[in-house]
Amino acid sequence: MAKLFEKSVKGLLIDITGVLYDSGHNNAIKGSINAVKLLSERNIPHKFVTNESQVNRDGLVAKLRRAGFDLNPDQILCPVMVCRQYVLSKGLRPHVLVHNDVKCEFEDLQSTEANCVIIGDAHKFFTYDAMNDAFRALMKMKEPLILSMGKGKYYEDCGKLTIDLGAFTAALEYAADAKTVIIGKPSKEYFNMALESLGLKADEVIMVGDDINADIAGAQSNGIRAVLVRSGKYRAERDENHVSIKPNHIVNNLEEIVNMVIKHLDS
Amino acid sequence: MAKLFEKSVKGLLIDITGVLYDSGHNNAIKGSINAVKLLSERNIPHKFVTNESQVNRDGLVAKLRRAGFDLNPDQILCPVMVCRQYVLSKGLRPHVLVHNDVKCEFEDLQSTEANCVIIGDAHKFFTYDAMNDAFRALMKMKEPLILSMGKGKYYEDCGKLTIDLGAFTAALEYAADAKTVIIGKPSKEYFNMALESLGLKADEVIMVGDDINADIAGAQSNGIRAVLVRSGKYRAERDENHVSIKPNHIVNNLEEIVNMVIKHLDS
Repeated sequence: MAKLFEKSVKGLLIDITGVLYDSGHNNAIKGSINAVKLLSERNIPHKFVTNESQVNRDGLVAKLRRAGFDLNPDQILCPVMVCRQYVLSKGLRPHVLVHNDVKCEFEDLQSTEANCVIIGDAHKFFTYDAMNDAFRALMKMKEPLILSMGKGKYYEDCGKLTIDLGAFTAALEYAADAKTVIIGKPSKEYFNMALESLGLKADEVIMVGDDINADIAGAQSNGIRAVLVRSGKYRAERDENHVSIKPNHIVNNLEEIVNMVIKHLDS
Repeated sequence: MAKLFEKSVKGLLIDITGVLYDSGHNNAIKGSINAVKLLSERNIPHKFVTNESQVNRDGLVAKLRRAGFDLNPDQILCPVMVCRQYVLSKGLRPHVLVHNDVKCEFEDLQSTEANCVIIGDAHKFFTYDAMNDAFRALMKMKEPLILSMGKGKYYEDCGKLTIDLGAFTAALEYAADAKTVIIGKPSKEYFNMALESLGLKADEVIMVGDDINADIAGAQSNGIRAVLVRSGKYRAERDENHVSIKPNHIVNNLEEIVNMVIKHLDS
């Protein structure tokens, strides 16, 4: 524990699903509402960094407010907005395979003669026809390109393991021999954007998450200390003694690490 | 060409879709009805070896008869029957993700506490829910195992490129970290079964197909000479000068190679 604060900590990056609330039921996780309140009251720099792509940023804020969190859109980095920025900055023409609720984010972009396919967690909109449409769009490209909002294998939805968008991305990669750019954790670019929006350097920040791969390994490989929470998709038998991934610390919930950081800053 | 018959040819293995008829429309390809008739009249050993898994063997025979072919079930090796034999021989308990028309082939098998997932070309039955059901079945297994009836990337269906079962297999492999056994071309076991049913050795046989990977490379890597037909999914620009796969010969259609074999046998 002493080691975690060996170098001073100035801010936090915090995952949302499984750290603030449970997926599906959308109930706040014990202590997390208070933890977010403490961060604001103490003016501790923090951003929420999520791979959630079933909703856009406004939808996410609405969801969090319903769960009891007092949050603003500019506190959140989510792949839907970053993907949109990426497409605009590169002048790409996307074919879009996303949840109906986030289609609006891409509707104004040119999509004729598409030169990339954007994949989000379309959930029930991952239909056979939608997969074929995306596949055919890729097959028409000279260099088939997928922009995938994360590449998760699965997540827990209303208590049930559910196949994540990474699997559908893998399917299209295989069928069309496509190349994939990941927009989200654990990509370097995504963590860099988060640090930039915080105005801090990698070694001044702690990432807090429930995903041993995207959050913990992802942050560490970008020079950011990473703390695992025992909530969300965390599983003791798999995560506490992982063969290769070692969190810098493990806490029961977000409130615990926030209190530790406050104590560290006060000392 | 002389090289093709340098060693004597005693029999043929013949792909069905794209060689006998076109997928989707199910029209016989020019000359193929006559070619099949010639093989029977001349008593030349031959078997039809397909990766078609949208129908079972009886369904396939019915389809071929409607297209004008005079064929019997025992002339055909198809992955649905081989998969059933594989499951029975290993005492496996399958969860089944296949086209509704072939479900009947597996209905009598024990499926509680499944220890493998069978994937066929389910076509429109590759729904989000069906993918999740198969994924959850895999996640309950100690060693997640997929039996995939081929692992094609795509095929032409009514003139449209259509995503093949290999992509959905890749999705489930990725999500559940599963191992896959391929039941169909280009697997060694499948070609061996075909040779056994012909009663001939690899170097006595020619494989005729339209798929540069499953048919041509598959046969050759099992010591079988391979002839590509310019029908079905054949594409001149891709297949005629393939960087690594070189058919032993290329013909316009099945009738052409059958006439060549007859001439060879008569000489």
